[in-house]
Amino acid sequence: VSAERIPGGFVDAAILERVRIGREYVAAKYGFRNHWYPALFSAEIAEEQVVPVQLLGERILLKRVDGQVYGIRDRCLHRGVQLSRKIECFTKNTITCWYHGFTYRVQDGMLCNIVGAPQSAVIGKKRIRTYPVQEAKGLVFVFVGDDLNPLPPLAEDVPPDFLAPGLAVRGVRSDVNANWRVGCENGFDSTHIFIHRDAELIRNNDLALPLGLVPKGRSSFQSVEEPGAPKGVFDLFDPDHVTPVFEGAIDQQTVLTGNPEAANKLPHHISIWLPGVLRVHPWPDPTLTQYEWYVPIDGERHIYLRTLGKLVAGAEEEQQFEREFEARWRPLALEGFNLDDIWAREATEDFYRDDTGWLREQLFEADGNIIEWRRLASRHNRGIQLPEHLR
Amino acid sequence: VSAERIPGGFVDAAILERVRIGREYVAAKYGFRNHWYPALFSAEIAEEQVVPVQLLGERILLKRVDGQVYGIRDRCLHRGVQLSRKIECFTKNTITCWYHGFTYRVQDGMLCNIVGAPQSAVIGKKRIRTYPVQEAKGLVFVFVGDDLNPLPPLAEDVPPDFLAPGLAVRGVRSDVNANWRVGCENGFDSTHIFIHRDAELIRNNDLALPLGLVPKGRSSFQSVEEPGAPKGVFDLFDPDHVTPVFEGAIDQQTVLTGNPEAANKLPHHISIWLPGVLRVHPWPDPTLTQYEWYVPIDGERHIYLRTLGKLVAGAEEEQQFEREFEARWRPLALEGFNLDDIWAREATEDFYRDDTGWLREQLFEADGNIIEWRRLASRHNRGIQLPEHLR
Amino acid sequence: VSAERIPGGFVDAAILERVRIGREYVAAKYGFRNHWYPALFSAEIAEEQVVPVQLLGERILLKRVDGQVYGIRDRCLHRGVQLSRKIECFTKNTITCWYHGFTYRVQDGMLCNIVGAPQSAVIGKKRIRTYPVQEAKGLVFVFVGDDLNPLPPLAEDVPPDFLAPGLAVRGVRSDVNANWRVGCENGFDSTHIFIHRDAELIRNNDLALPLGLVPKGRSSFQSVEEPGAPKGVFDLFDPDHVTPVFEGAIDQQTVLTGNPEAANKLPHHISIWLPGVLRVHPWPDPTLTQYEWYVPIDGERHIYLRTLGKLVAGAEEEQQFEREFEARWRPLALEGFNLDDIWAREATEDFYRDDTGWLREQLFEADGNIIEWRRLASRHNRGIQLPEHLR
Repeated sequence: VSAERIPGGFVDAAILERVRIGREYVAAKYGFRNHWYPALFSAEIAEEQVVPVQLLGERILLKRVDGQVYGIRDRCLHRGVQLSRKIECFTKNTITCWYHGFTYRVQDGMLCNIVGAPQSAVIGKKRIRTYPVQEAKGLVFVFVGDDLNPLPPLAEDVPPDFLAPGLAVRGVRSDVNANWRVGCENGFDSTHIFIHRDAELIRNNDLALPLGLVPKGRSSFQSVEEPGAPKGVFDLFDPDHVTPVFEGAIDQQTVLTGNPEAANKLPHHISIWLPGVLRVHPWPDPTLTQYEWYVPIDGERHIYLRTLGKLVAGAEEEQQFEREFEARWRPLALEGFNLDDIWAREATEDFYRDDTGWLREQLFEADGNIIEWRRLASRHNRGIQLPEHLR
Repeated sequence: VSAERIPGGFVDAAILERVRIGREYVAAKYGFRNHWYPALFSAEIAEEQVVPVQLLGERILLKRVDGQVYGIRDRCLHRGVQLSRKIECFTKNTITCWYHGFTYRVQDGMLCNIVGAPQSAVIGKKRIRTYPVQEAKGLVFVFVGDDLNPLPPLAEDVPPDFLAPGLAVRGVRSDVNANWRVGCENGFDSTHIFIHRDAELIRNNDLALPLGLVPKGRSSFQSVEEPGAPKGVFDLFDPDHVTPVFEGAIDQQTVLTGNPEAANKLPHHISIWLPGVLRVHPWPDPTLTQYEWYVPIDGERHIYLRTLGKLVAGAEEEQQFEREFEARWRPLALEGFNLDDIWAREATEDFYRDDTGWLREQLFEADGNIIEWRRLASRHNRGIQLPEHLR
Repeated sequence: VSAERIPGGFVDAAILERVRIGREYVAAKYGFRNHWYPALFSAEIAEEQVVPVQLLGERILLKRVDGQVYGIRDRCLHRGVQLSRKIECFTKNTITCWYHGFTYRVQDGMLCNIVGAPQSAVIGKKRIRTYPVQEAKGLVFVFVGDDLNPLPPLAEDVPPDFLAPGLAVRGVRSDVNANWRVGCENGFDSTHIFIHRDAELIRNNDLALPLGLVPKGRSSFQSVEEPGAPKGVFDLFDPDHVTPVFEGAIDQQTVLTGNPEAANKLPHHISIWLPGVLRVHPWPDPTLTQYEWYVPIDGERHIYLRTLGKLVAGAEEEQQFEREFEARWRPLALEGFNLDDIWAREATEDFYRDDTGWLREQLFEADGNIIEWRRLASRHNRGIQLPEHLR
């Protein structure tokens, strides 16, 4: 496999033809193009630091210069080597290829010098691909796609309230060995709470996690598709729309019981948004909201970047949230509770890896919200990442 | 690769077309369908224990309930995950999927409950695939194939005397990194005894192992193909049919000598039977018979399940055989002597892995019995395992 | 993958069609056939020692008998196993297959006995493939190709002065995880000296390594293609042909400086020769010449066999060179300095592994000598190694 290819490749046309619902979504094994994706946290890239990332199969170098993060393709034009194999920065604004001294300006990708061949005719003529970068809420967002002008605003690629003033955000990230869609569907799937029933978070935070949630009909989820705003699907968890199941029975025999009397209740709703970000509100506590992204690394891995947001009034409240996050929510929720989700995705990946899982799966009533998400994502995405984009 | 696929896949049609002898046998890279295969020993699966196995590329869960072993496909209908990734049994008769609580009855594979969605319309409507299971002589046999009615009797898929009353059987099993046919042909190949010449078993048990056996003609092997009985090929080792070679010479110079005067003699005959089981009689001692199976795990691995049988008169003699087996025959024969065979198969696999070995090999006179086995297996098998069976 | 296949395989016809310059060279992923390649050093194979090697994808066994090294295919005719998996030599002139006793004469590959089947009709009728072997300057050269008669002389496959009387040669070898052409182009590439700027050899030996070398035009390199002599390309490093760059600048700011006043100067010229051997003269010292081979192991690896040659007058001078080589040049030059080249090749391989790198690379002015090498190699090679040669 070459630097930017991975085993698994792209989806076979013969398989796609047989997909009836959400065909574009199934085709998007490497993700949707022309969207903003968070690659890491702002605190992970200091002034003049260079950090390599991989998004939608593309290798990208990020560098912070005078506070601003820039992104260029992590591949020298000349011989195709990864610049990040040995990072050489001789000036603030440039990255130099370790092999032959090809030097690129991070702001525009221009080949601005070749250290050992200063009169070369190619200097100032060729550019390496650049990636728009924007920071918000302590996350570094990268736009992966074509040279669009104007760029779609970041606000259309995050859950509606994520950029709200006063929302403090903290989080963690991991690489998960599963496709990004397996990540999305694990998170948005309301029946999967079955795997969390023994989580320390449930007991410790007195949560009323049921064994399952039975939707009362089609109205329990609804799409949001207004122009100029984020596109997503809401799954409603209130008693008007779903019936929580607290008693599990097999052959008329009760085998498991949840705790319907617990003090802290369920989230009111879970929603999923293009290009692949979940919002759980409130969670894991009445004052908190969880936002989590499933960012394609390649066809078989995603960055699981998960955060908690809390509305705060000023720096002091934010610091208090920071302490609470580190002491309680990071270990108990993002690292403890969500570890089961990582495990479940990696176990599910086997079935979907060769793309036949999309044909062989047998979804049931409770998966209506997932079907809706596949349809919505197929309608509203801005492009599908294809092999030619990795060339 | 997906859960049930392995590198190597199935045999290319262009290769099969060029095979002149035993084409069905060459096509059966993943084994012959509609046969009984031993997966493990009865003692390895206790009451209510769940054990995952893989046979002919299919992942199967075995569970013992009220003494009887049942087999179901180790793949949830819903999202295709392996049930065995985290075994959950809430009642004696069921297995529950760890992900969404889909619960299957082991006797008939019926989806009998979904723990978190007790009113789902799919409950009682869908079944997971089941596998007939039968125990005999301390082995658990699984029938891998279609829903045949009636099932072919186990007695047609084992060597003729294996089910004889009074035959006590003990054995061991290993996974070998070679195709099951490479296993069969290593065992049935009379010239391969060359590799065993320095085995401790030969010296220790005073066996007269020659360096080779020269057949006296076509009559030295014969097929057995009566209807309603096991199908196999006998290779006759008596002096009327073969000449043992005890002196090895190169360029008229003797380089190796066997021991023709040894007290314990050779087996009288070696026979191989569908779906891939060898009988060596007597071996490794005049009162013993070796029976060994080469059970396809997938296209590149097989379970090497090997046993010794001894006719015993009652429990006391059986216990004595048990002690002798553990103290002497297990270490010396099944684990010592046969280790060379495992090594040889894994070294041979390289040449056959991409299936071109079947075209490139150059068999010679002494391989007549192997050619006959390929023909017989092509004539009498009950089906070939194909990619669609793994879907 | 089978014994002689490796991931990556051969170059796709659709890619080759799009190659405009040096198409045969690009096609020769597994090397050029019908050439002499050094496989190891003479001192590495003692009398009656058997050594397995892999060249151009072919597995070969070398054995020294009465001082002469012979080469045969490392694959038994019968079942295709590698003889080298367990080497059995019962007589000086033969190798016996560990599996069934097939015995081959190393001089002509004849199947001269089968230890356990001495009367087989195939004895004396079948031959295993043999490889011409020739030793020179302490290297064991193997001819990989067709049965040509007469064989091309070794002298046409080494740099012009390599076989000169009085030239003492010492060296080392390593296996490198990169295609052999990536090796050639790393060595012949004059701009790549950028990676060596901090090498201990430069400081320690007071060498004037510039950051780059700017050719003064097309005349700075020239092909040598006289009939009956080695075919290669010279790259001239003298001031008439190139301008060394000792000051590296980015945006008018000096960022790196070499040492133009160093006592020991640059090589006068670097030349590359079919089938893939470099000559650097003088290097790393005025009295020495470096000769280095990039011998294809398969499509993704090469043997990097590198040597230094020195003209000596008699045994005493040769011993003095030997001591100097071991104490100084081996650690400082061949093992120290060249380690950077090994690293660079392995980092470059990613881009060329799936063969699309040949279409995606963007060579520049300083790569003119490399383009010339690709053309010359395409014109003068004696054949391309193809899949059928590995059957």
